[in-house]
Amino acid sequence: MKKATFYHAGCPVCVNAEQELLNLVDTSKVNLEVVHLGEHANRIPGAEDAGVKSVPALVLDNGSVLHINHGATMAQVKG
Amino acid sequence: MKKATFYHAGCPVCVNAEQELLNLVDTSKVNLEVVHLGEHANRIPGAEDAGVKSVPALVLDNGSVLHINHGATMAQVKG
Repeated sequence: MKKATFYHAGCPVCVNAEQELLNLVDTSKVNLEVVHLGEHANRIPGAEDAGVKSVPALVLDNGSVLHINHGATMAQVKG
Repeated sequence: MKKATFYHAGCPVCVNAEQELLNLVDTSKVNLEVVHLGEHANRIPGAEDAGVKSVPALVLDNGSVLHINHGATMAQVKG
């Protein structure tokens, strides 16, 4: 079982896009942990140690850190 | 079947991280197309129309564009 950790901070616009990404993941092969750093600030040092520079970010069990920027449209921002 | 398109340009350091991301995807639920824009420049206008501002990026079938930055370590760059 692979392990991946998705760190985010609850940005409302980004949550939908993040959910879409998470929906793509094969949870039969990947143990995916989702960590809301705004609610669990005690996890911030571990995220920093893993190399997280911004959120949202996906940390893989081989040490790779994928920083994700969601290019929200103005229409999405206007909701 | 969901559809997702992964655009990249063959950055050697990023390819490994991208492959890791792609390995996470549940291909039984997602039709994932990988497009190398360096080799298929005719796909660039479509990527731009979809909202791709940088590569690598993952475009989802609901219109969301996730721009992915891989924070490569200097050790990885030194390879």
